[in-house]
Amino acid sequence: MDIVNDLIAWKRDGHQLDDLRMQAFIHGVVDGSLAPYQASALLMAMVLRGLSEAETVSLARAMVASGKMLDLSPLRRPVLDKHSSGGVGDKVTLVLAPLVAACGGVFGKMSGRGLGHTGGTLDKLESIPGFRVQLSQGEFLHQLERIGVAVVSQSERVVPADKILYALRDVTATVDEAGLIAASIMAKKVASGTAALVLDIKVGSGAFMRTLEDARRLGRLCAAIGAAFDRPIRCLFTAMEQPLGRAVGNRLEVEEAWAVLTGAGPADVRAVVLELAAMLLALSDLGIDEQEAGRRAAAALDDGNAAAHFERWCLLQGGKWRPGEFHQLAGASVRAPRGGWVTGVDAFQVGRAAQLAGAGRQRADEAIDLAAGVVLAVSVGEQVEEGDLLGTVFARDGRRRAAARELLARAFTIANAAAPSVAIVLDRL
Amino acid sequence: MDIVNDLIAWKRDGHQLDDLRMQAFIHGVVDGSLAPYQASALLMAMVLRGLSEAETVSLARAMVASGKMLDLSPLRRPVLDKHSSGGVGDKVTLVLAPLVAACGGVFGKMSGRGLGHTGGTLDKLESIPGFRVQLSQGEFLHQLERIGVAVVSQSERVVPADKILYALRDVTATVDEAGLIAASIMAKKVASGTAALVLDIKVGSGAFMRTLEDARRLGRLCAAIGAAFDRPIRCLFTAMEQPLGRAVGNRLEVEEAWAVLTGAGPADVRAVVLELAAMLLALSDLGIDEQEAGRRAAAALDDGNAAAHFERWCLLQGGKWRPGEFHQLAGASVRAPRGGWVTGVDAFQVGRAAQLAGAGRQRADEAIDLAAGVVLAVSVGEQVEEGDLLGTVFARDGRRRAAARELLARAFTIANAAAPSVAIVLDRL
Repeated sequence: MDIVNDLIAWKRDGHQLDDLRMQAFIHGVVDGSLAPYQASALLMAMVLRGLSEAETVSLARAMVASGKMLDLSPLRRPVLDKHSSGGVGDKVTLVLAPLVAACGGVFGKMSGRGLGHTGGTLDKLESIPGFRVQLSQGEFLHQLERIGVAVVSQSERVVPADKILYALRDVTATVDEAGLIAASIMAKKVASGTAALVLDIKVGSGAFMRTLEDARRLGRLCAAIGAAFDRPIRCLFTAMEQPLGRAVGNRLEVEEAWAVLTGAGPADVRAVVLELAAMLLALSDLGIDEQEAGRRAAAALDDGNAAAHFERWCLLQGGKWRPGEFHQLAGASVRAPRGGWVTGVDAFQVGRAAQLAGAGRQRADEAIDLAAGVVLAVSVGEQVEEGDLLGTVFARDGRRRAAARELLARAFTIANAAAPSVAIVLDRL
Repeated sequence: MDIVNDLIAWKRDGHQLDDLRMQAFIHGVVDGSLAPYQASALLMAMVLRGLSEAETVSLARAMVASGKMLDLSPLRRPVLDKHSSGGVGDKVTLVLAPLVAACGGVFGKMSGRGLGHTGGTLDKLESIPGFRVQLSQGEFLHQLERIGVAVVSQSERVVPADKILYALRDVTATVDEAGLIAASIMAKKVASGTAALVLDIKVGSGAFMRTLEDARRLGRLCAAIGAAFDRPIRCLFTAMEQPLGRAVGNRLEVEEAWAVLTGAGPADVRAVVLELAAMLLALSDLGIDEQEAGRRAAAALDDGNAAAHFERWCLLQGGKWRPGEFHQLAGASVRAPRGGWVTGVDAFQVGRAAQLAGAGRQRADEAIDLAAGVVLAVSVGEQVEEGDLLGTVFARDGRRRAAARELLARAFTIANAAAPSVAIVLDRL
């Protein structure tokens, strides 16, 4: 008891937690010798005192050591992955994964379940009938070898500490600490065998990181952990004031991803995908720089190669992909109450509307409606007349549809003059 | 869930917790809607952000409201009490309680069990054979009316939040925050019906408060709560570098208290008792000032009136008080390894030695040995020859006795020259 008390007091009093102390913390959390109320007190001390770069690396090390390390070396190729800090309408992985494979890279992701406004990548993939996200490690490796792309659900045995800590942080207001976030992201990637990683860090009202400064700090901490494990990391900082693309909701986003894979789709999604693909392919063993990688990626979207890889990928994971063929739900539209310029489409509000429509979970054990969500008709910068369609809510029952429509209507700002346009890519690291 | 998260985040982000939020916290802790891991995260945020005077008062209010309020108004006299922030060898209550009654005041205390180096006041009283500390509210009132003094164990129904919070703070390194300490002390006093209170706040290496500045802050916060409930408070700040008096251990301290009650005993105990008695009697309805109150108190110690009240008190609570008649344990003595001046008798070390001898608990459910403890032969400022007796450890078995003796030997500092003497009373508020 006294040892745990001393450990908590150490951080409370502003001292640094070294490797040994971080190990004691993580071991204690996993084996139960540190009670949840002790872990949460220490987490709050970490949030208020902050974690240094050295502490963040120590925490990530202890988290990696808490579970199993996957060995992907039989592949003899670097396995690439991308992580996004979470945004509304973020269907980038659905495009990036087959695109990287189409360009000769190996993209392998172990993903967790989404808890928030909309589903996570696994939920989106499961909106394709038959798509299996539970693969054995052997199947995962075999598929990567065969077609260069696989996205599966995270093994329980990889970083067991993360699941415990995340559940605790979620209910104790101790989520928002860059060091805790960085260690959580990176420990899972390192333990899953990721060789190189791009991070898409969202910045803005719809994102975890409200300012570019916070986002850069998170990026630097992730890069420090990557360096400690010899896994190269690149970061892209992208704006998340309005949703990415126009579709928000699981199957709706897959449809939009398909549009991008076939050379069409919203320009912002395509731009982010191409940036990330260029960074990632240049980190691989292809011997090409970002410029060349970007050219190949753009060509693969336009010549059908990326789309073909998406189809093969679905097939191998059991999914029956038929574009546009799904049980479409009834929609309720939001129309412009006046004419003017669209100066804001609040990502947070759109996300909440989609969640209410049935696209996201409020509790981890909730079922979600894979066809539900929002499709926007306008983006920031467009001009509208009174009565023009701004967006549509799709939901299974009328009550949810009406309530979600109410929320969606509040997401739009229409002004008398156009606002200055903002770039989607804010910075790189 | 979100409401609790918002509450924790509010304090985490440095905002003030108002009455409503403190009520939500305390209600949640008592009814279980706030989980222990959420309470501990919020407590850590309170420790690191600090509690303002207004927050401390709000917390105390919420704690008082969490349980039953005792109604002592049938007495039609102000019930006086004294609280000590805990010191080694602190037998002041044993003397002060009957002394106040002897001088015409009404002294009523509800006390908790001691957890620490030595037993609490209840343990000390129970070292008198037959002494009952469990009285009903009716018995408590009746005894106060009859002889003006009663000390009983705290009802579980008074401030139930305090017990839960204290248990949590004890294992999450969130004990040391003056606002939390002040609210815990004062809520129990207010709910127990105390009309006026003196606080003996110990300062030094053997005390909670290491510096006079910290102690003054605690005193001011207690006084603010007292003012909010219209209960006058006075504070005495006393040194706790060496133990108070010479006896440490339950029955041993009762014997020393008896010596003070009969006009003898160590000068430091008598001095602190007289200061507190003067403050307390002046707060009562006797219409006398502190100077007059101090004179009456000194007279009552010297003329046998205080001792007579002690005897009547024991009798009414069932105790058979026979001075010096108890099963004395075998002693092991510590002798001076060299000649010189005693410049330090470390209260913390003496307390640990007494605890090891069997006088204190390490866990709340542990039994204690009421006859065990330490009797010091010297105080700071005295001159000793090599081989002179410094102190004696009393314990039931030889192993404990030897180990406690080892610890006690480390408590003494002997130097070639006398250190400047320090006053026992450091300040008043």
